[in-house]
Amino acid sequence: MTREIKVRGTTAAGYEPVRDEFTALLAGAEPGHASQLCAYVKGRQVVDLWVGPDTDGDTLFGVYSSTKGAAYLTVALLVQEGVLGFDREVAYYWPEFAAEGKGGVTLRELLSHRAGVVGADSGFTPEEIADDRAIAARIAVQRPYWRPGTAFGYHALSIGALAGEVVFRVTGQTLQEVYEERVRVPYELDLHLGLPEALEPRFRSVLPMMPTPTERALLDAQPPDPGSLTSIAFNRNGAHPTALESLPNSRLVRAKGPASVGGVASARGLSRMYAAAVSGLDGREPLLKAETVAEFGQIHSNGYDLVARAHKSFGVGFQNVAEAWYPFLGVGSIGHKGVGGSQAFADPRTGLAYGYTRRRFPYPAGPVPEDERLVRAIHTAAVTG
Amino acid sequence: MTREIKVRGTTAAGYEPVRDEFTALLAGAEPGHASQLCAYVKGRQVVDLWVGPDTDGDTLFGVYSSTKGAAYLTVALLVQEGVLGFDREVAYYWPEFAAEGKGGVTLRELLSHRAGVVGADSGFTPEEIADDRAIAARIAVQRPYWRPGTAFGYHALSIGALAGEVVFRVTGQTLQEVYEERVRVPYELDLHLGLPEALEPRFRSVLPMMPTPTERALLDAQPPDPGSLTSIAFNRNGAHPTALESLPNSRLVRAKGPASVGGVASARGLSRMYAAAVSGLDGREPLLKAETVAEFGQIHSNGYDLVARAHKSFGVGFQNVAEAWYPFLGVGSIGHKGVGGSQAFADPRTGLAYGYTRRRFPYPAGPVPEDERLVRAIHTAAVTG
Amino acid sequence: MTREIKVRGTTAAGYEPVRDEFTALLAGAEPGHASQLCAYVKGRQVVDLWVGPDTDGDTLFGVYSSTKGAAYLTVALLVQEGVLGFDREVAYYWPEFAAEGKGGVTLRELLSHRAGVVGADSGFTPEEIADDRAIAARIAVQRPYWRPGTAFGYHALSIGALAGEVVFRVTGQTLQEVYEERVRVPYELDLHLGLPEALEPRFRSVLPMMPTPTERALLDAQPPDPGSLTSIAFNRNGAHPTALESLPNSRLVRAKGPASVGGVASARGLSRMYAAAVSGLDGREPLLKAETVAEFGQIHSNGYDLVARAHKSFGVGFQNVAEAWYPFLGVGSIGHKGVGGSQAFADPRTGLAYGYTRRRFPYPAGPVPEDERLVRAIHTAAVTG
Repeated sequence: MTREIKVRGTTAAGYEPVRDEFTALLAGAEPGHASQLCAYVKGRQVVDLWVGPDTDGDTLFGVYSSTKGAAYLTVALLVQEGVLGFDREVAYYWPEFAAEGKGGVTLRELLSHRAGVVGADSGFTPEEIADDRAIAARIAVQRPYWRPGTAFGYHALSIGALAGEVVFRVTGQTLQEVYEERVRVPYELDLHLGLPEALEPRFRSVLPMMPTPTERALLDAQPPDPGSLTSIAFNRNGAHPTALESLPNSRLVRAKGPASVGGVASARGLSRMYAAAVSGLDGREPLLKAETVAEFGQIHSNGYDLVARAHKSFGVGFQNVAEAWYPFLGVGSIGHKGVGGSQAFADPRTGLAYGYTRRRFPYPAGPVPEDERLVRAIHTAAVTG
Repeated sequence: MTREIKVRGTTAAGYEPVRDEFTALLAGAEPGHASQLCAYVKGRQVVDLWVGPDTDGDTLFGVYSSTKGAAYLTVALLVQEGVLGFDREVAYYWPEFAAEGKGGVTLRELLSHRAGVVGADSGFTPEEIADDRAIAARIAVQRPYWRPGTAFGYHALSIGALAGEVVFRVTGQTLQEVYEERVRVPYELDLHLGLPEALEPRFRSVLPMMPTPTERALLDAQPPDPGSLTSIAFNRNGAHPTALESLPNSRLVRAKGPASVGGVASARGLSRMYAAAVSGLDGREPLLKAETVAEFGQIHSNGYDLVARAHKSFGVGFQNVAEAWYPFLGVGSIGHKGVGGSQAFADPRTGLAYGYTRRRFPYPAGPVPEDERLVRAIHTAAVTG
Repeated sequence: MTREIKVRGTTAAGYEPVRDEFTALLAGAEPGHASQLCAYVKGRQVVDLWVGPDTDGDTLFGVYSSTKGAAYLTVALLVQEGVLGFDREVAYYWPEFAAEGKGGVTLRELLSHRAGVVGADSGFTPEEIADDRAIAARIAVQRPYWRPGTAFGYHALSIGALAGEVVFRVTGQTLQEVYEERVRVPYELDLHLGLPEALEPRFRSVLPMMPTPTERALLDAQPPDPGSLTSIAFNRNGAHPTALESLPNSRLVRAKGPASVGGVASARGLSRMYAAAVSGLDGREPLLKAETVAEFGQIHSNGYDLVARAHKSFGVGFQNVAEAWYPFLGVGSIGHKGVGGSQAFADPRTGLAYGYTRRRFPYPAGPVPEDERLVRAIHTAAVTG
């Protein structure tokens, strides 16, 4: 079972070092490792690689919070068209949201993770977690966990539902419907918010974390924390705590595609979406004007994140990928990682659109540190090529 | 002199591991160590332990800034009754406070350690330090050390006096009088803001820090810093620098009970106060409604504290104990540690009310790192029991 | 070439330990090291030392961002006289600045590094970098890199030009002209914003960084980052990236003296300027009233700096030297370091005015860690003497 791992796929001229880097990283991978790496530069595919059993470039994985990128792109289209106004109060569109001192929260603040409603006091049921409108109804009556305006924290399982409710109130369509119609179908993107039954055969379930005994001991040494802010944000606080490792393995979740974490995608799908958004794809204009990208990529919340308990950086919704992880990228880069190890973003300065997926849930959760080497290899090729 | 230290007192069924943890910690304690540990869950006493010479469950110690919990509870009662309004400007109640650019500071901002008046340029006399009204008069004319609204910092020796002055202006009674009448006497709490002469025999003076030679060398290597913000906040900047290690050993301080640092208490007193506030005690309703607790426990100031020069977290007055130290506790936990090693808080999600005192001033000052193990043992018993 | 380094110059009684500390530090200096150290206390010179070949107390070096101190002092004079108002919008004085969402930015916010316009998307030419009015014209049309009001970051190469444009719009003179006329000439300060040809013989060019092989490897391992916020702030993002190590070696830069980084000075010049500002010099009143110093020294931006990617602290323009580096100094200390190793500040509480210069560009860039020992030695002598 040792090293029969072999990278398949293609790289454009000048991007060969990316394949070498990917191959080198796999030396440290677990047996049976499966992942995909795809990148575009200015609308042209430059990297398209994959590895692992039962996996090719079209295989679909649960991408967790990388889903959020699709949600924010959908909102950005509506803002660009003037259908939604950033500096309107959320309650202007959605009156029930004003409860418990949230009447003054603007759409900009909500999307910047500043509203303080990261979850609900008594937690969500599995059915609610799959249903954005149910989440939104619960959050509407929730008191903020911090005073809005004084801090920010990652709305891990709620932000997509909150954005979606605003979209629904304004358009009469769910965010998933708007995304499908205006983004996914036109570009044939393999990033699904609601996976059709017919595509199920291409989906591979998330495999559980494989910590070493030492890592397992560290996990087990964590004291129970059902009431912590982090637990509330990840729905570990109620009677039905969410097991993240198996969330995309639920057909209900895949079918409904909740906009915070329910997306199913390939690395191709992720990178193509960001390419379509920022650079254009297949000869078409980009979905977003440069000005819109700049506005969503402008740093809005930066510093200590009360949920992550670490330094984080957000624009409007999107993570500021440069500030958060890869400082060599251009300021204004927009993207979103997933707790299962996916990473996806666009760097508007170089035109780089990046997508990475993996099947096995990593230890520790989130983007694996090795990602930095992949992003760096591609970015270096893009700026020196 | 080796290990004759023996834990005395009681634990409820399921809380036996707390006694084991306490005993284990004492293996590393200095000779003659004395401390108390007491906890309630939902108004029921579950832990009541103590250790050391001349010490029992009713012994009283100087609890330094754990005193502030009593001050904020008193303010909370007045806010709950509508006597005080959070979002009023301080100067509405206390016109002199408007001097030097403080006219716009609200009561909420003041209590959240955002007003920037952590001390006075020329320092306080020992008589002033014991007298909240004298402190308040000096601070009223002080320019803020940072621009109000841009940062926060721990108002170590002033916040109780500032809260107290607002209470006095509105009620005509000192904060100490309101606390005595409405909180301490009804629950027979051994947490005194003004220790009567008759109770002096139960008080044990603070014993000085016992640093190792290495620790002593580190202390001595500190350069003189009379003008630093930290020195100003701890009154080390004037002609009469305060020696914290002996502050509660002054009868004047004990007699007046300044609301920032002058309290004298047992662990029982501390935990009973938080139990009375949040869960109710002895069959009575809690002093604070859940909504009031949530409002005071909502995170207001979080991040870099300009006085502590470290990450800190405050609600309205109270420290956010979960965010600051024990992330496994419930968000919205309210409490306050003392520089002499005391710790006290309530976790409204579990109903845990915690009190810890110790006689000897610790190195380094503040809650000893081992506290985390005690809090964790009790919390784990509370959530799994 | 080993240790013939010898400190020359004088120290006042009680400041002999400063010479010892300076001498001790030089044991670790590179061959040919040259630097100057000068300090005043309450307007009286207490330290005047220098070391190195081709160097005496009157030698002039490029002081990079220590130049900014002169710029802010000039603004402070105009604020003190009511010519400029802190809380006016920048666009009130300079209408073009309102473009791209900057209409609401006040002069206070601009000077506190909060406006988000740290550079220009396509970079500056070498001619622009030397010309504050050209920089200002480019920045006026720039979109902020973060949402103004939510964060701050060091405007390394732009802040002097931005302050200068406001000065020019109000007075009809450049900041350099106002500084020359009102500050430099009256006190015969060797801190030049625009070095006359006649003084060129006293200037010594910056010598390049001398990293060890390990340090060089670390520098070379940095990935290319032309689009990062840091690169934008240091003009490494365009067709003509600025090489900081040789910037003051350009006669054009020295002749124009851009207010962010173009100053040429001796340590005497730096310390005398701060002494003149805060304590008075040669029997004259200080240039700034205590109230003005307090207002500019009040902490305005503190925490994570988006450009420096580290904890920083600013008052209005000036760095809060105590908070940023030397916590034993008085809160309200105002100053500015330079990337080439210079350091200069005033501590209004002790009346200490400090200046340090060095010829060789340090590794890593910025104030060398050893500076702390020099500042500490002088401050300790000042407060215990």
